[in-house]
Amino acid sequence: MDLKPTKPLTGFIELLPFQQRCFDYCANRMQNVLKNAGFNRLDLPSIERAEVLTDKDNWDEIETQMYLFQKGDTKMGLRYDGTVGLSRYIAGHLNNLTFPFRAYQFAKNYRGERPQKGRYREFYQMDIDIMGIDNLSLNYDAEIIATLANMYKSVAEFIGDVTIKIGNRKFWNAMFEYLNLDEKQSREAFILIDKRDKISDFNDAVSEIVGADKAKVIADVFTSGYKSVADKTDNLRAAVDEMDDLMSVLRVMGVENAEIDISIMRGHAYYTGIVFEFFLNKFPELGAVGGGGRYENLASKFSKTKIVGVGGSVGYSRLLFGLIEDNKINLSQFENNIDVAVLVMGKQNVPYSMNLVTKLRENGVVAVPYLDTDKKFKNQIEYADKIGARFAAIVGDDEVANNIVSLKNMESGVQEPVTLDTIVQKLKVK
Amino acid sequence: MDLKPTKPLTGFIELLPFQQRCFDYCANRMQNVLKNAGFNRLDLPSIERAEVLTDKDNWDEIETQMYLFQKGDTKMGLRYDGTVGLSRYIAGHLNNLTFPFRAYQFAKNYRGERPQKGRYREFYQMDIDIMGIDNLSLNYDAEIIATLANMYKSVAEFIGDVTIKIGNRKFWNAMFEYLNLDEKQSREAFILIDKRDKISDFNDAVSEIVGADKAKVIADVFTSGYKSVADKTDNLRAAVDEMDDLMSVLRVMGVENAEIDISIMRGHAYYTGIVFEFFLNKFPELGAVGGGGRYENLASKFSKTKIVGVGGSVGYSRLLFGLIEDNKINLSQFENNIDVAVLVMGKQNVPYSMNLVTKLRENGVVAVPYLDTDKKFKNQIEYADKIGARFAAIVGDDEVANNIVSLKNMESGVQEPVTLDTIVQKLKVK
Repeated sequence: MDLKPTKPLTGFIELLPFQQRCFDYCANRMQNVLKNAGFNRLDLPSIERAEVLTDKDNWDEIETQMYLFQKGDTKMGLRYDGTVGLSRYIAGHLNNLTFPFRAYQFAKNYRGERPQKGRYREFYQMDIDIMGIDNLSLNYDAEIIATLANMYKSVAEFIGDVTIKIGNRKFWNAMFEYLNLDEKQSREAFILIDKRDKISDFNDAVSEIVGADKAKVIADVFTSGYKSVADKTDNLRAAVDEMDDLMSVLRVMGVENAEIDISIMRGHAYYTGIVFEFFLNKFPELGAVGGGGRYENLASKFSKTKIVGVGGSVGYSRLLFGLIEDNKINLSQFENNIDVAVLVMGKQNVPYSMNLVTKLRENGVVAVPYLDTDKKFKNQIEYADKIGARFAAIVGDDEVANNIVSLKNMESGVQEPVTLDTIVQKLKVK
Repeated sequence: MDLKPTKPLTGFIELLPFQQRCFDYCANRMQNVLKNAGFNRLDLPSIERAEVLTDKDNWDEIETQMYLFQKGDTKMGLRYDGTVGLSRYIAGHLNNLTFPFRAYQFAKNYRGERPQKGRYREFYQMDIDIMGIDNLSLNYDAEIIATLANMYKSVAEFIGDVTIKIGNRKFWNAMFEYLNLDEKQSREAFILIDKRDKISDFNDAVSEIVGADKAKVIADVFTSGYKSVADKTDNLRAAVDEMDDLMSVLRVMGVENAEIDISIMRGHAYYTGIVFEFFLNKFPELGAVGGGGRYENLASKFSKTKIVGVGGSVGYSRLLFGLIEDNKINLSQFENNIDVAVLVMGKQNVPYSMNLVTKLRENGVVAVPYLDTDKKFKNQIEYADKIGARFAAIVGDDEVANNIVSLKNMESGVQEPVTLDTIVQKLKVK
């Protein structure tokens, strides 16, 4: 019989235990930041109705990226981001939730796109949102950004520091209005600004769309700074003031690595105001490892109630899988997670040993027994070494007779007899 | 435009925030037991190749239960249990893992079966396994059972106590051998014993298959006890001794709620020796909320290496969703998760307030600001009340001028001025 393949499908990641411990450790740290900031975890289904995931009119286009399938008469698919489920959930529980409502999700999402470096078909995102009914003050934008900044900071020992770049959709809306651009021109200029880094002849490209004079005004924003046009119209003034206010709240919240980068647009998504992206200083090649922004009508497809909010997400797999896979994170602290291996010399000593193991665990000591008791000492001590145990507690007939264990420090090699009363204390010192 | 449905698909569960906190809290407790016992968390893909999930020859039968789909030329589907992925992973990483290897998974599984009470289409299981190469001593069976027992015990305040029922496939194999049953008879007798509780005329049914004399021998096992036949053959003796040994190790490990129930069979799965199931004493109507057993060749479809192991799983959604949905768990401790709501009276006091919020969070206080600063005090204090904050910290012009906050105990209603130096201490006392 042919053996089945042992590798996961392309674009799907599975880690070795010590790598997984790093992945989980960082996720816990980030989630602790969220708990401290009063965010409620939502665990939403991975499968949604197809009509919830997509508008029927663009089924074909979407289908290439999404995992869609049918069960009986019901078309359904796997979630591809956190927003669709969140919108549905919020609309369905308007009366059970208190607004402004803080939510976070840490969940797997699925995209059937061609896998490439840093893009996975199954990937974790940590999505955070604060939502209000009808309106929500700009101060919450600062809080979302500060919270995300603290999430990254909580794992800075692994990923280093981040830089936060902040833009404002309202600024460009006001700018295009000031320049009298029509809808098509606005849309095209928007795309060019979004991709400004990747376009070699940005000014020429803008010229082609809006004409040379207006293109110069746009180009000036990047050379003279966004504040240089603040006094042109009330809306430009308001957009600039909004950014100044935001920056001042971020400062009192201790966020010192944020800067305005007016070219930040955050693609074509549903954002309407402040937008932002996070970059790693040590690993700029990863691109944006998170981002988000302000939106005006989250759940319009599910409810007539207007849900206004600001949200952001950490591209968690993008951030961690890559760095772990490429050995860019020092994982040494995750290699040893066992305090003591209990080595049992002979079947007759199992009860004594398992009583010890139970007692150790009850006292918070991570204890792993080796229970194939007919194996030689050599094999057993090798096991203790391989699993990275800090100590080996050896239980043979002599130890049982004297009500002790022989405790061997696996690093120094020093071995000493220890009574059962003192072993917990010995092992808890790290 | 018609609004889209806000309910999840039938058989998919989503909880309210306070319910989710209970679900997560219990999951953390259980996982802490596993970490203390040195189990390695594996986070395996939710999507596997169809050929990995199923044998092609029974595709049609399986398909009704599984979520299968195709992307390009690749047939794939959603995982329906933890075992398939585990087998593949272990076979693929034989050289990276140290055996006996301890693994656990806490993951969503998917079954497209007709939803009914206590059965979900998307459900969590917590799977734990200890695996060896070629062989693994019986003592590990005791360790798996004791570990599962401790997992349930860690959340006993919510689910009450469990009873563990333990059987042994080897006992019945030896019995059928002793009775000289052929393969078909053995298989049919096995099924009857497995369903003994649900069959009104068990003895008659067995008689029909094996004849009256042999049926009486089988029936005697249940009336006179499994030990009554121990001396009939060597294999029966070995099977009985195995159970005695197991029970004595369980006792030294402090497991007092285990009993032999020789009718426990654990369905038709791949078990070959000790099998066990967990039942809730307070909620017997839930049936088995967990179980597992010994298996002999886990990864035979993926590798020529023989992986012997013992594993078990907690039917986590089955256990918790039902009890939460039916209000059988007291969730009051999960209703209030906010230490303090910071109420901001006027835009000018945002910087002072956000600085305070930042300081509080840095000190481990769960702080939520209310940042729609033009809202009246009445609205703001109502918000503090609704989110279940223990305290409200009121920040108005007077407070800022005097470098204090007015701290209101939301339960007693008592309000007092507190300096910024003492507020952390005040809030940390619970």
